[in-house]
Amino acid sequence: MEFEESGIGEECGVFGCVAAGEWPTQLEVAQVLSLGLVALQHRGQESAGIVTSNGACLPIYTSHKGMGLVSTAFPPEALLKLRYGNLGICHTRYSTTGISELQNCQPFVVDTLHGRIAVAHNGELVNSRALRKKVMRHGVGLSTGSDSELITQLLALTPPMEELDTPDWVARIKNLMSETPTSYSLLIMYKDVIYAVRDPYGNRPLCIGRVVPISRLHSSGAGEEDTEGWVVSSESCSFQSIGAKYYREVLPGEIVQISRHGVKSLSVVPRPEGDLPAFCIFEYVYFARPDSIFEGQMVYTVRQRCGRQLAIEAPTDVDLVSTVPESATPAALGYAQQSGLPYTEVLCKNRYVGRTFIQPNTRLRQLGVAKKFGVLTDNFAGKRVVLIDDSIVRGNTISPIIKLLREAGATELQISDVSCSS
Amino acid sequence: MEFEESGIGEECGVFGCVAAGEWPTQLEVAQVLSLGLVALQHRGQESAGIVTSNGACLPIYTSHKGMGLVSTAFPPEALLKLRYGNLGICHTRYSTTGISELQNCQPFVVDTLHGRIAVAHNGELVNSRALRKKVMRHGVGLSTGSDSELITQLLALTPPMEELDTPDWVARIKNLMSETPTSYSLLIMYKDVIYAVRDPYGNRPLCIGRVVPISRLHSSGAGEEDTEGWVVSSESCSFQSIGAKYYREVLPGEIVQISRHGVKSLSVVPRPEGDLPAFCIFEYVYFARPDSIFEGQMVYTVRQRCGRQLAIEAPTDVDLVSTVPESATPAALGYAQQSGLPYTEVLCKNRYVGRTFIQPNTRLRQLGVAKKFGVLTDNFAGKRVVLIDDSIVRGNTISPIIKLLREAGATELQISDVSCSS
Amino acid sequence: MEFEESGIGEECGVFGCVAAGEWPTQLEVAQVLSLGLVALQHRGQESAGIVTSNGACLPIYTSHKGMGLVSTAFPPEALLKLRYGNLGICHTRYSTTGISELQNCQPFVVDTLHGRIAVAHNGELVNSRALRKKVMRHGVGLSTGSDSELITQLLALTPPMEELDTPDWVARIKNLMSETPTSYSLLIMYKDVIYAVRDPYGNRPLCIGRVVPISRLHSSGAGEEDTEGWVVSSESCSFQSIGAKYYREVLPGEIVQISRHGVKSLSVVPRPEGDLPAFCIFEYVYFARPDSIFEGQMVYTVRQRCGRQLAIEAPTDVDLVSTVPESATPAALGYAQQSGLPYTEVLCKNRYVGRTFIQPNTRLRQLGVAKKFGVLTDNFAGKRVVLIDDSIVRGNTISPIIKLLREAGATELQISDVSCSS
Amino acid sequence: MEFEESGIGEECGVFGCVAAGEWPTQLEVAQVLSLGLVALQHRGQESAGIVTSNGACLPIYTSHKGMGLVSTAFPPEALLKLRYGNLGICHTRYSTTGISELQNCQPFVVDTLHGRIAVAHNGELVNSRALRKKVMRHGVGLSTGSDSELITQLLALTPPMEELDTPDWVARIKNLMSETPTSYSLLIMYKDVIYAVRDPYGNRPLCIGRVVPISRLHSSGAGEEDTEGWVVSSESCSFQSIGAKYYREVLPGEIVQISRHGVKSLSVVPRPEGDLPAFCIFEYVYFARPDSIFEGQMVYTVRQRCGRQLAIEAPTDVDLVSTVPESATPAALGYAQQSGLPYTEVLCKNRYVGRTFIQPNTRLRQLGVAKKFGVLTDNFAGKRVVLIDDSIVRGNTISPIIKLLREAGATELQISDVSCSS
Repeated sequence: MEFEESGIGEECGVFGCVAAGEWPTQLEVAQVLSLGLVALQHRGQESAGIVTSNGACLPIYTSHKGMGLVSTAFPPEALLKLRYGNLGICHTRYSTTGISELQNCQPFVVDTLHGRIAVAHNGELVNSRALRKKVMRHGVGLSTGSDSELITQLLALTPPMEELDTPDWVARIKNLMSETPTSYSLLIMYKDVIYAVRDPYGNRPLCIGRVVPISRLHSSGAGEEDTEGWVVSSESCSFQSIGAKYYREVLPGEIVQISRHGVKSLSVVPRPEGDLPAFCIFEYVYFARPDSIFEGQMVYTVRQRCGRQLAIEAPTDVDLVSTVPESATPAALGYAQQSGLPYTEVLCKNRYVGRTFIQPNTRLRQLGVAKKFGVLTDNFAGKRVVLIDDSIVRGNTISPIIKLLREAGATELQISDVSCSS
Repeated sequence: MEFEESGIGEECGVFGCVAAGEWPTQLEVAQVLSLGLVALQHRGQESAGIVTSNGACLPIYTSHKGMGLVSTAFPPEALLKLRYGNLGICHTRYSTTGISELQNCQPFVVDTLHGRIAVAHNGELVNSRALRKKVMRHGVGLSTGSDSELITQLLALTPPMEELDTPDWVARIKNLMSETPTSYSLLIMYKDVIYAVRDPYGNRPLCIGRVVPISRLHSSGAGEEDTEGWVVSSESCSFQSIGAKYYREVLPGEIVQISRHGVKSLSVVPRPEGDLPAFCIFEYVYFARPDSIFEGQMVYTVRQRCGRQLAIEAPTDVDLVSTVPESATPAALGYAQQSGLPYTEVLCKNRYVGRTFIQPNTRLRQLGVAKKFGVLTDNFAGKRVVLIDDSIVRGNTISPIIKLLREAGATELQISDVSCSS
Repeated sequence: MEFEESGIGEECGVFGCVAAGEWPTQLEVAQVLSLGLVALQHRGQESAGIVTSNGACLPIYTSHKGMGLVSTAFPPEALLKLRYGNLGICHTRYSTTGISELQNCQPFVVDTLHGRIAVAHNGELVNSRALRKKVMRHGVGLSTGSDSELITQLLALTPPMEELDTPDWVARIKNLMSETPTSYSLLIMYKDVIYAVRDPYGNRPLCIGRVVPISRLHSSGAGEEDTEGWVVSSESCSFQSIGAKYYREVLPGEIVQISRHGVKSLSVVPRPEGDLPAFCIFEYVYFARPDSIFEGQMVYTVRQRCGRQLAIEAPTDVDLVSTVPESATPAALGYAQQSGLPYTEVLCKNRYVGRTFIQPNTRLRQLGVAKKFGVLTDNFAGKRVVLIDDSIVRGNTISPIIKLLREAGATELQISDVSCSS
Repeated sequence: MEFEESGIGEECGVFGCVAAGEWPTQLEVAQVLSLGLVALQHRGQESAGIVTSNGACLPIYTSHKGMGLVSTAFPPEALLKLRYGNLGICHTRYSTTGISELQNCQPFVVDTLHGRIAVAHNGELVNSRALRKKVMRHGVGLSTGSDSELITQLLALTPPMEELDTPDWVARIKNLMSETPTSYSLLIMYKDVIYAVRDPYGNRPLCIGRVVPISRLHSSGAGEEDTEGWVVSSESCSFQSIGAKYYREVLPGEIVQISRHGVKSLSVVPRPEGDLPAFCIFEYVYFARPDSIFEGQMVYTVRQRCGRQLAIEAPTDVDLVSTVPESATPAALGYAQQSGLPYTEVLCKNRYVGRTFIQPNTRLRQLGVAKKFGVLTDNFAGKRVVLIDDSIVRGNTISPIIKLLREAGATELQISDVSCSS
């Protein structure tokens, strides 16, 4: 089942790009950034923003933000104004707070004593309440409720405020990490570099790609001398559409500096002794796009394997295996393969229901999810069905679907939740 | 594969509703119409329009049209202004001409000698050029290039122009049918009735549903005395979301009158002797929603059966069966079932690519469909794949997909097109 | 007082332009048209439309229409798509019917037996009801309630429908004039010419200008060989902003053909014997811009003269002369000059009130026009005031203004209406 | 001449309202605020924002901001969401920086250690560069270049940060005033009160009004017991349209607290010894609406008096007195009265030119201001004219106007600038 009804977690996408070599290069950074956002759109559809820098000593930052999908938020003239960027970061946002305003749209850009920084953030701070208090006690007014503004102000005020000409951003980032252990994947743009940061628990994903000539994209021998640019992204699924090769993950606790000269690991901040990494399980279960790779595994494969495991742990005596379209489909196929039961579609989804203004009256409200899912009656009438789901933990959609399928003739319905499988 | 790149045919959706019994009734016709449109949205995303009538002797028609999806075109205030409708028709449009303007948006409403009519049309007239000439020779100026305006003007001028108080609409519709044999499914609203018309060849679908109390929706015994309203729709998939039961198809050549008193067949215009019905094959192959029923068969089932047939007629020696998401999925599953080969997903679709303004440069254009489809590499690398497609006749997408899959490691790729199977 | 609250008459603006000489020329017709519309914006703010033609044998027409002011309706890309026009006509609309929809937006473009025509119209037909009936009896469906669509269809169906290759537009226009005597000023574009037509009573204004090199604009000796283009406009005030010289009026009943070769009078249709011309008095009183010239007189001068006359016919014993800003200001100044009383401003207008969505509650509604007019109390407190108005015949604004001024301290208030002066 | 081409000063409008008595009251605060903004719209047309508070102990703030005019920025649903406000402040912005973004739109709302505050500001800080540095050195990141965000952060961090439960806002405001002497008029909303502050030099205007029953609006005897609410505004011209009586000015350096219990002067911060007040002369000359009252004088009267003085100081031997519409009209009338020369209009203004997208080519650009001003030729051809202007100091419009009038036949043109008169 898909994310849109979920209230779990803050699902956002971050993406960054630096053109490699002598600037300006042939690489159109603004285009790469916008295509990267489109590829991460499943992580957030509320708003989108891009900030580019020309990377000069006195850098010129250009930013554009807008509500809605990338396609709505970025009309041609917006991309035009970003075209002189040699590096940039961007963000696509899914709001968990329900406050949908341009003001909350990332990346945040602020002027600090040492110049302007731009920050894009995916995650939720465990101690945000205490941190807000701390920042405000220092005398900072916070203009949004967002963790991302909080992180930005923490980076700005991190003591000791150096009186040196060159600020020590690594020290500042480490200080931030000492203030808040999890969860965040961060991109921080400062002049001509991007710092890519993952919290010590590695809760949210972040990985690096290398932009190569299209002709070398599928040759295994492409060396670093081919590199046209570097990209950093919440998910590797974005690399394919911009012509980048998967390079590596940012490690839990790692601070990576990405510049036109390449990728450099600056530090890896350790977890408290005894603590384990805590990669967000929901990334595997339904946040991520199935073609993304986390920890060396394709997400689709993990989902499918969970379905197989479920078939072993929770076998059922039914006629067919199905699912609610569409994030649990790999798990359902895995369950079918393992159990030997036929995989059969029982519902088709109306993709246009999303944002309709129609407020149905009582009569129509009773029809529940019927607006959203069409019933493929002939496929299951008179049969016993096991429905593989990935989101019972949210539990807000499955019961009307059960009702819908029962009324359409399923003689027996079992629900098996892959997110509860071990 | 889905419709959006297609240039074949004029795919539109028409929908109508009449509240049954004494007006006003509890049935909120404007809501039913808008939900009907949402359910037919896959047939056209360019524009949408609703016209309602209060059905009085001197009827008041209210109309609203807008560009884009129903959800965009119908903000709450638009539905509000339509709320006094006791009957109405609506239309969702896919443009084949490329001229995307509000002016072309249906239903068309015109004043004729005998009062105002509203017309919604799905289809393409075989002899539109000659008909345009004929109408213009009569002295009518045509303000669009659309067949639907042409039909509306033909209805207005159809000789003999009766000098009676009551116009003979059946005669006019028959005359229209004699002028142009195919293809059209039409809804014509006049005062308090809707005429539902299908061309003699039955080229485009049209069927009737009966709105019943929600509590009776799944009881087989609901008699006509329960009827809360009548709906007429391009596809039966819209009935479920508004709480209607499938009643029957409008027959090829039939003129049906739908009023608050019920459904009445006025005439069935025959085809020329020897001519067979010609239901549009592409409705089965990819226009229609899989849960719709045509000629007593669920579309999904027909697609699946085509896949089975394809496996018999064109067996292949490969490792796995797959498809390009998502209209050919039922056929691929059918092929897999018949052939015994495993059904495996090889691509995942980015649903947000659609309308982006981003104009990629040469470099990015080479990446082709990579923006739209993610590759599930681990599922097929090193394997031989047969790809079941439904749209080779259009042929504009499949070759870059083949390239994409080859580069990702498929050792062999065969394409089998279900739309060419017998 | 200005027009916006008026319910009298249909005030619209029409404008046309033909580039002179060999096409394409340096003259940017689309720009000239849009600037012409801006200059006529006071005649209608509801919608605007431009249609251009490249003037070829098989002409390509391009059109753009939009709601609201020219500045809103014509974004840069709209002008871009019109840029290949060698001639064109345009229209700005003020709705008297209250039906504000894009569908009513002019110019109307229709395909006729003899090709495509575009029609822009200012006026109201005296016999529109009978004409509608006649047209519909002929079998034409009318899709709007507008006189302009009616005129367009009348031009299309005018018998006898010539079976010749070249249609006789002059005969058609004459026939139209015989069907409906008044009121209209019309621009009809057909291939490479514009026909400019004024009804036999000359009810609505229409005049012709000659576009000359800027350097020759103020030299009296510019001969016709300098001509860069021809323009035709509801009011001459538009000529200044596009660099055209006033050429002449279209005469009552005249049909003028404007082409790249120049201006040619084709016919002057006479009025019924004994009938006098009937130029709309409200054009002088408040429709027109004061710098426009009608019948050889500057509108401002006529208004001022009316004020003088009013002072002679209706002298008053007060302390000062004033007006409600701003169309009656020339009359008030004329009254002051004639009477010897001081001209004093008593109100200032808030230009931003126009289209606010704020629906004041009962309390605020009592404040009436106070939102729109600020009171310059010190200028008139304790004094006797004569207020020169131009629109008592409408009568919908003046009484709350009297109340406002009385409460602010005017000891006596007399109203004198210039539109009633002889 | 009007403000829109000006580059002088930061012209914004601030407005606040508190309902008097027990909450909730009959006074619709959101409506009062929006009408207040409409009345101050001449001070800024770039963006508008309203923030209301319900005034509870744990106050709920609601805010809405938008680009453009109040009428665009505040659709009905925006006012609806603000309807529970018992007090509120608002702002209309004119941008001098050219950066036109929603992010810069006021009022600013921030969370501080002691709760949320909202700040609306009119003015420009003389020492903003140094103050930015100071604030950033403290570790605050600034997200805009605006003085208003700077003021908000200064209020948040003002040391000593009290550790008391109740913050001492007066101390904070005084501290702000010690950091930056001028120029600002400020509204600060905190829970259930508004602090109204004017800088010690009184550079920008700010005055207080009392909302009374409409029936008592024009009776002189209305006592404070009648009070329905308190309003505070950049200009008194806004009071009339919401039914408020002028109460008094906020004094230079004064901090006034406005609550449901009434108006209380908390402090008057003095200027450095020897310094004089420095009310912005341009408020009198062209920023303010002529019906506003500053320092006990109606702006119109001051302008008129300047015109008289100009006639005394700079007499001319010409035939008539005129002006460029419309801010200098009072001065021109004053000049005419003093000099005995006739006041005559020579230009009429096209109010719709404003924001057109049309980018004229070289030819049309030569026509200069002709798009904006129509020439009333007959009024001055062959005559000598003195043109009273108010903005030669800006100097960017007058020379093309002189050219325009000369070419239209003025034999002599003198310019006399009222802003330079003593």
